[in-house]
Order: sequence, then structure tokens, then C-alpha cells
Amino acid sequence: MPHPSLFIDALQYNNWSEEIFQQIQDGGLSAIHVTICYHEDFDEMLQNVNDWNNRFELYADKIFLGRTASDVRKAQKEGRTAIFFGFQNCSPIEDDIELVEACYELGARFMQLTYNNQSLLATGCYEQNDSGVTRMGRQVIKEMNRVGLVVDMSHSAERSTLDAIEISERPIVISHANPAFWHPALRNKSNEVLKALGESGSMLGFSVYPHHLKDGTNCTLESFSAMIADTAEIMGVQNIGIGTDLCQNQPDSVVEWMRNGTWTNERDFGEGSAGSAGFPDQPSWFRDNRDFSNIALGLKDVGFSDDEVAAVMGNNWLNFFESSFEPIVN
Amino acid sequence: MPHPSLFIDALQYNNWSEEIFQQIQDGGLSAIHVTICYHEDFDEMLQNVNDWNNRFELYADKIFLGRTASDVRKAQKEGRTAIFFGFQNCSPIEDDIELVEACYELGARFMQLTYNNQSLLATGCYEQNDSGVTRMGRQVIKEMNRVGLVVDMSHSAERSTLDAIEISERPIVISHANPAFWHPALRNKSNEVLKALGESGSMLGFSVYPHHLKDGTNCTLESFSAMIADTAEIMGVQNIGIGTDLCQNQPDSVVEWMRNGTWTNERDFGEGSAGSAGFPDQPSWFRDNRDFSNIALGLKDVGFSDDEVAAVMGNNWLNFFESSFEPIVN
Repeated sequence: MPHPSLFIDALQYNNWSEEIFQQIQDGGLSAIHVTICYHEDFDEMLQNVNDWNNRFELYADKIFLGRTASDVRKAQKEGRTAIFFGFQNCSPIEDDIELVEACYELGARFMQLTYNNQSLLATGCYEQNDSGVTRMGRQVIKEMNRVGLVVDMSHSAERSTLDAIEISERPIVISHANPAFWHPALRNKSNEVLKALGESGSMLGFSVYPHHLKDGTNCTLESFSAMIADTAEIMGVQNIGIGTDLCQNQPDSVVEWMRNGTWTNERDFGEGSAGSAGFPDQPSWFRDNRDFSNIALGLKDVGFSDDEVAAVMGNNWLNFFESSFEPIVN
Repeated sequence: MPHPSLFIDALQYNNWSEEIFQQIQDGGLSAIHVTICYHEDFDEMLQNVNDWNNRFELYADKIFLGRTASDVRKAQKEGRTAIFFGFQNCSPIEDDIELVEACYELGARFMQLTYNNQSLLATGCYEQNDSGVTRMGRQVIKEMNRVGLVVDMSHSAERSTLDAIEISERPIVISHANPAFWHPALRNKSNEVLKALGESGSMLGFSVYPHHLKDGTNCTLESFSAMIADTAEIMGVQNIGIGTDLCQNQPDSVVEWMRNGTWTNERDFGEGSAGSAGFPDQPSWFRDNRDFSNIALGLKDVGFSDDEVAAVMGNNWLNFFESSFEPIVN
């Protein structure tokens, strides 16, 4: 029987396995936006697509490639999960605007303009200075708007994010981050960004990655849920969803690669530190996908109505998918 | 018989042919820094190296690959020309700092951190905002300093240029540009940059590309030479040389490719305009390499001593090559 509620997670990057796909099914998720690129160029990203195609074949009873909002409905009906591809960096388009459409055709539906550092398109949140969206960035946003590839500014700096919201003719997303008013991490977002997201019909996905949480691993579900309620006041309950940033079963070498790629000869610790370089432990109330419904319970407890809980847990993302993934035909 | 004066041109990008190599010999140039990359990635740049290796074989009586300052002396002695490779963009290192050393090994001796637009390393002079040298840029400058690949900021924005001069532990170059006080083009440089170049032992190569000249194609040799004298006052006669930016026999499609690469779906005219999109005509006193000695006559006429003329026409660049191309061994 299909799961009664529609659950969508707008960001996961797990060490994928049959066990995890089973947990996703047990958790009742109908759609997940999965990261298929941090630093990969086009050819390397294509290899990751091939790996996913193998998984779609092996685990066809549990997962399939999601391309449209109707694939989410289909997944819900069939008790499977639609997997939507996304990039946390613009590296797959290299310096070639024509690759935007090619990436979309391969299944990509989200692309971050930056991953922590400066890119050809915009500035990342770990740079000292933020010059906003670049000349190429303006062109690429226009092309992303045209083909239906969503602009994601999760790891971008403030001015670049505000620029992207303004330049993009379609709503954008911050697929995985939390408000800075709750936990002032570099990756979390200012009230100004939250307001601009809400005013443009853009979406924020709340992250359960411990570095984005108040009190980290020890963050309580009550505190997390109350923060969501406060954010809904700022940007509207229709513009928020979940984007857990779950990185399950990944070895610490992966977070080191995420942070350092091939851009530095020194070692960068990003959100971590020399004494705490690896992946932090998940909070007790969200260890893996089987706990996804705990968030719904938390939201209910802080006063969200049933409709609002359903909106935040999946319906808002579904609405966003409906209007965002179709190309604009002139 | 070797040419009596040492002539070095710090920037040319011609449509190379036996005719042009003969003109270079007739003009008496012992060394030329040639551009082998505008937008190419590593593999594409490698193809350009292969093309040059074919030329070195075909025209061995006229040219050979220059790797060290002593190759300039050798060329002068043999009446040939040492060709030094350089990139006008950092695209050949892609997003991989390890490619810096590989580029050096292939013969590259200069690399611009940006070409007009934002790069992963710094901001180009056509961007609206300039955030300076990036996190990756700092790492790459350090690596360039180590291997002996010279930082060139000819097409970079002001703050990025000042950052690079400060961050680099070795002198840098602006291989081809003129002072903005003489002709306020976006590509020409402020007095602040000129002073910082002089104070750091860095070099400026004066350009004869019409868009960088006062009165463009109609610029007089007198005006050009007087500008050089004024610049010497600001940054020191030992820190200036010639970098003509000669783009001989190139079709207009090449300047369009330089400006647009693959970063935009619209057409960008760079220093040109819709009504004047192609390569402008050269001034009458510098049509090609056979006119190189005209610049020496112009310098003499505005009061430079023989030693100073020799310094500007080649000896300053030779001194710079001496101290810049050797790796730093720890």
C-alpha cells in the first residue's frame, strides 16, 4: 500500500546500497534529490549517471529516475522512490554553456552555482569576498531557466544568493541549509535571504546535517521543529520543505574530498576542524531515512496543522517540482 | 650575424606561418612570449603545444622552444628566436592545482589568472564586481611561484591585480597593457597598479593593440613613446618592456572566439562594438615584427639613453626571465 503521506527529501548523498534503498522505502519517501556531483567535470559526472543507471536496473522494485513531478505521484502510487539528480557545483558544465542542456537531458534537475569556493558563475560561502553572480553566471542562469534546471544556492555566499534570486526568472532553491538566526554557521542563511526566497516563491529545505544544527549532534527535535515554525513566519509555510543532507555510511575520506577536491595543496577542514575532521554523528531522532516521519511528529508538536505538516514534509516540494522542471518554449 | 640589440616581445598571438617567422627574424627579435591558450582546457592546450612542436621542427632554422633566460642568449647568438609559451587564461589547469606543474613542464612560462571574466582564481577586467584573488587563487599562486610559472594579470580587474602582486612571493607581469592615464580603456592600468608593479620588481609590457592606444589605429609613435617615458617615471625604467599583443593575419572570427569562448549564448564585443567587431588595423609604425625597431627610434626621440632604450626593448625582460623561470627548491 502506498504510504499515506507524501514525503520528499531535497538532498541526500549516501554511500548507496540495497540496505539504504530499503530504509528509504521503509521511511516512505516518494522522492529524493540526490547529489551526483561535488567536483566532477562533465565526463566524470557522466560516470556517476552510469552508476545510477546500474542501480535503477538492480533495484527497480525500489527506485527509478525522476524527471518530472508526475514521477513523484507515480512513485507514491507504486510504493517506490523517484530519484532526482542534482549537482552541488557547476563543474559538470565546465566553461561551456551548451553543457547546461546536456546535463538536463541526462536527468539533472538542480545545480548549485557554487560549492563553498568561487566558481565561474558565483561566489561560495567560504570565500572572503563575494562579487555576486558573474557575467557567465547571468548567461547560465538564463539557460537553466530555459531548460528547467533549477538554480540551487545552498553553498553560495550572501550577495551571490540575492543576485541569483533576482536574476533568475524562475524560483530558485536552497535545497539544504538552516536559518542563521537559529545557528550562525557560514552555510546557514540570513533573514534577508529567507525573505527574498519567500517573496520569489523559492524554497528552503531544512538540513539535519549536524554542522547546520544548533547544538550539533545533540540538537533536539523540539528545537529543530520550533526553528521551522519561526522560519515559516519569515518566508511563508508554502516555501519550506526538508533537505536533510544525509550522508549515510560515507567514510571520512569522502568529506575530506568534498572539502578539498583538487583546488588546494593544503588541507581545508570546511565546517569541521583539525580535531574533528570527519562526518559528525547524526542526531538521535534522524539516524537514517526510517526516521523521516519523526520530523512530521516534531512539526505537529510545535503546532503545525495536518495540512501544514503535509506541505512541509513533501507537498511544497511537489508543487515546486510541478512548476520548475518543464522547459520554457518560446 | 646576430642582431646587435636584444629585442624581446612579451606578447604575440599571430596566425603563425613561415612568412611571419621570417618577419620575426628580419625584425631581429630574440624572444617572443606567444599565447597558446585563451579558453582551452588541458587537453586542448596540449594540442596547441603539439602544433608548436611541429612548427619547431619545420622552421628549426628560425625558431625553437624557449625554457630559460639562457635560451634567449642562445637565440640571439644563433640569429634565431626563442618562443616562450604562455596562457591568457587559467583554463588549462581546469580545477586541478596539480596541473600547474604539468603546464610548466610542457613549456608554459606565463599564465594569466583571468581572461576578462571571473575565473576560479580571480576576477577579470570586464566583470562588474571584483572580489580579488580567491581561495583557490591563493593556492595556485603559491604553486606557480614554486614551479616558476609567472603570474600575468593583463586581463584582470584592479583589486585582483593588487591582490596578486601582494600574494605572489615572486614578481608578476602585466605582459600586454598600457596605462589608463594615457588611454582609459578597461584593459589599461591605474597608477596604483603601476606603482605596485614597480615596487615589487614586476614588469609591464606596453601594448600596440589599437584598442589599448590613445587614438587607436591613428596613435602616433611620438605619443606612444612619450607615454612610455611618463610610465617610467611612475614605475621605474627597469620594470618596463614591450608586449605588443600583435595578432597578425587572424580572421575576425578569432577575435569573436576570444571574446565569447563558450561562456555566453549572446554575442559579446569586448573592446570592440557591434559596428566594429573585428580586429582593428595596426598603427602605421607597427604593422608587423619588421617594425619592432621603430619603437626603439621612438624611445630615443623622447630622450631615453641608449642603455635605457636597450633595457626597454629587451634587456629588462631578459633580467626578469633570469630570475623568474627557475623552480624554487626547498
